[in-house]
Amino acid sequence: MRKINFSAGPSALPYEVVEKMSEAMIDFEGSGVGIGEISHRSKEFLSIMEEAKSLVRELLEVPEGYSILFLHGGATLHFLMTAMNLMKKDGRAGYLNSGTWAAKAMKEASMVGEVVEVASSKADGYTYIPKGYTIPSDIDYFHCTSNNTIYGTQIKEFPECPVTYVCDMSSDIFSRRIDVSKFDLIYAGAQKNVGPAGVTLVIVRDEILGKTGRDIPYVLDYQQHIKAGSMYNTPCCMAVYMSVLNMRHLKARGGVAVAETYNREKAQMLYDEIDRNSMFRGVVTVKEDRSDMNVTFVLNEPEKYSERFAELCEEAAIREVKGHRSVGGYRVSLYNAMTKENVQVLIDVMQKLEQEK
Amino acid sequence: MRKINFSAGPSALPYEVVEKMSEAMIDFEGSGVGIGEISHRSKEFLSIMEEAKSLVRELLEVPEGYSILFLHGGATLHFLMTAMNLMKKDGRAGYLNSGTWAAKAMKEASMVGEVVEVASSKADGYTYIPKGYTIPSDIDYFHCTSNNTIYGTQIKEFPECPVTYVCDMSSDIFSRRIDVSKFDLIYAGAQKNVGPAGVTLVIVRDEILGKTGRDIPYVLDYQQHIKAGSMYNTPCCMAVYMSVLNMRHLKARGGVAVAETYNREKAQMLYDEIDRNSMFRGVVTVKEDRSDMNVTFVLNEPEKYSERFAELCEEAAIREVKGHRSVGGYRVSLYNAMTKENVQVLIDVMQKLEQEK
Repeated sequence: MRKINFSAGPSALPYEVVEKMSEAMIDFEGSGVGIGEISHRSKEFLSIMEEAKSLVRELLEVPEGYSILFLHGGATLHFLMTAMNLMKKDGRAGYLNSGTWAAKAMKEASMVGEVVEVASSKADGYTYIPKGYTIPSDIDYFHCTSNNTIYGTQIKEFPECPVTYVCDMSSDIFSRRIDVSKFDLIYAGAQKNVGPAGVTLVIVRDEILGKTGRDIPYVLDYQQHIKAGSMYNTPCCMAVYMSVLNMRHLKARGGVAVAETYNREKAQMLYDEIDRNSMFRGVVTVKEDRSDMNVTFVLNEPEKYSERFAELCEEAAIREVKGHRSVGGYRVSLYNAMTKENVQVLIDVMQKLEQEK
Repeated sequence: MRKINFSAGPSALPYEVVEKMSEAMIDFEGSGVGIGEISHRSKEFLSIMEEAKSLVRELLEVPEGYSILFLHGGATLHFLMTAMNLMKKDGRAGYLNSGTWAAKAMKEASMVGEVVEVASSKADGYTYIPKGYTIPSDIDYFHCTSNNTIYGTQIKEFPECPVTYVCDMSSDIFSRRIDVSKFDLIYAGAQKNVGPAGVTLVIVRDEILGKTGRDIPYVLDYQQHIKAGSMYNTPCCMAVYMSVLNMRHLKARGGVAVAETYNREKAQMLYDEIDRNSMFRGVVTVKEDRSDMNVTFVLNEPEKYSERFAELCEEAAIREVKGHRSVGGYRVSLYNAMTKENVQVLIDVMQKLEQEK
C-alpha cells in the first residue's frame, strides 16, 4: 500500500510518473533496454535530454539568451559552482541569509572569495524573511534562496536587484509562476518539484558567464557544460527521465499557473487548521512569509501529545511529518504532487487529536 | 522485448536487478513510497546506504583503515577531487596517460597543480598499455586508469608504486579480484559494474587525507563526505539502491572471483572469433593488454560490409556495438551482467557475415 508522503525531499511524485518510471526500468520508451541501462549517447536518451530542456523553457517561459542545464551534484555543488563562475578574482558577493541552505551557500562561496551578508534573520531563528534591505551595487552578484525547507519560510516578493541576480529555487521551482527574466542564474536540486534526487536544474543567462578572470576547473565551469549540452560527463539518465515524466505531467495538468493556485489553496487549508486547532501553533512568526511548500508547526504540549499524534499519523498511513532535526516539531511538505485529499487526511488526524483531549 | 545491450556505459544490468528496481519505484522495501520519492534520512534508506558500504567492503575485501563513499558527480568530478584532496600546495602528481579518460583526469588535475606524465601510449593511438616506466618518488601521488573503455585496453598487472596510489577503476571494478591494500584511493563511476549512472564509488585510505595544506571547498573535500557518511548532500537514492541490488546479485552469484573467471572466458570467446574471422581484426596491438570489459575491433572492408553487419545486428536484437566516435569500428562491452549466451548471438552474426561473403 502506498503511504501519504510528506517528506521535504526527496518527496512524493505523481503516481502516473512513478508508474511510468517503473515500466521504463524494464523498457525505456520502446528501446528494449531499461532507463538505468541505456547509453546516454543513444538517440532515445538524447531526445529525452532535448525534451527536458524544452519543457523547462515552456513551463517557466524562459526568454531567449538563457541556457538550460541538467547537471550532477545537487544544489550543494552549485553553491560552489555559482561562486566559481560569477565571483571575480578579488571580487565579492552578497547573500541573503534566510536559512540553513543560504548559510551553507555562503560558507561554500567563502572558499572562493569575499561574502557579504546583505541581510539576515539568523538571530531570530530564521523565523521570517528579511525585508527592507539594500543590495549593494558594488558586488559581483546577489544570492537568495526562494524557499527555506527547514524553517518553512518563502520569499513572496523578490526584491529588485541592481547586480547579477542568483537564486536557489530548489524547493519551490515549478510551484508558482516566476519571472525568469528578473534573474541571471537559477538553480534547483531536482528532488522536490522537478523529479527525484540525482540531478540539478540550472537556468543561466549566457552573457553573465566567462567574466571572472579566474581559472575555473573544467567540470565546475558552466560554459563547458553548456558547450557539451549537459553531457560533459554521463548524466544521471534515470533522474533526468523521471524529471521529464514529471514535467510532462505538470504540463498536462495545465502548467505552473494551475499548480500555483492549487498549492496556495492546499497550504491555506493546513495553515487554517494550525491557526484554529488549540493543540498546535505555527513556527514562522511573520504570517506573510509562510511557505506554501513546507509547513512548520509544533504541538503546544509535546510532552503530553507527541506520542499519540505519531500513532494517529501512522494509523492514517502518513509518513515524514517530523520536523528537521535543527527545528523539531513538525514539517509537512506540500510540493506539486501532494493532493488536497491527502492534506485533509492530516487535518482529520489533527482534529481527532484535539477531540481526544 | 528486451534487447542485447553492449553499451559501454550506462550498460546492461542483471534482469533480476532491473525487475526489483522496477518494483521499488512503486514501493521501496515495504516503505509504502517509491525509491525516487523516499527521504534519504528515512530509516529505510539509511539502512541501504549502510548495506552499500558493507557490500563493497565484503566483495572487494577492503581492509581496515579505508572509508567507502557513494558520491555525486561521476568519475569526472573525481578527476578534480582527487587532485584537490591529494596534491600538496605547490606539489605535483604523476599520471599514466593510457587513454582518453586518463588524459581528461590529467587536464582537470592541471587546474590544481603540476601534472607529470609518467608514461604514455598516446602517440600510438592508445593501442596498448605503457609498461616498464619508473614512477618518480618525489610526486604527491600516482594516478592510473585500470581499464580504457574507448580503446579497449586494460592494466593486467598493476605496477608497484612508491607514492600514494590512485586508480580510476570506473570500467572494471567488481569484474576481477583486486588487492585494495595496494591502493590508497580508488574511484569508480557506477554505470558499468556497480549500478546505473548517478553515483560514484570512492574507496579511500583515511590517513592520506587532510595533508595538502590547501583550502578545499567543503563539497569537494573527501573528509567532509566521510564525516557525513556520504550524506553531506542528498545522495541519488535511486542509483545507490540499484547499486545495492546489483551488489547483492554479484554476492549471490559467488562474488568477484566467480565473475572474474566468467568474464575472462566470455571475452576470450569474442577475441577468438575476431582473430579467426577473416572479416574482422582487433584494434589493440598488444594482445596481453586487451580488455575483458570492452572489446574493440574493425571490419577489414567497412565500406563493403558495415551496412550489412548493422542490419544483421539489428535483426538479432543487438544494440550499441558502434565504436566510440574517436576510434570508429566496433566496441562491444562485456560487463558482469553480459551473458556468454548473448555474446554467442553476436559471434553467430559475425560468422553469418563471413559466410555471406
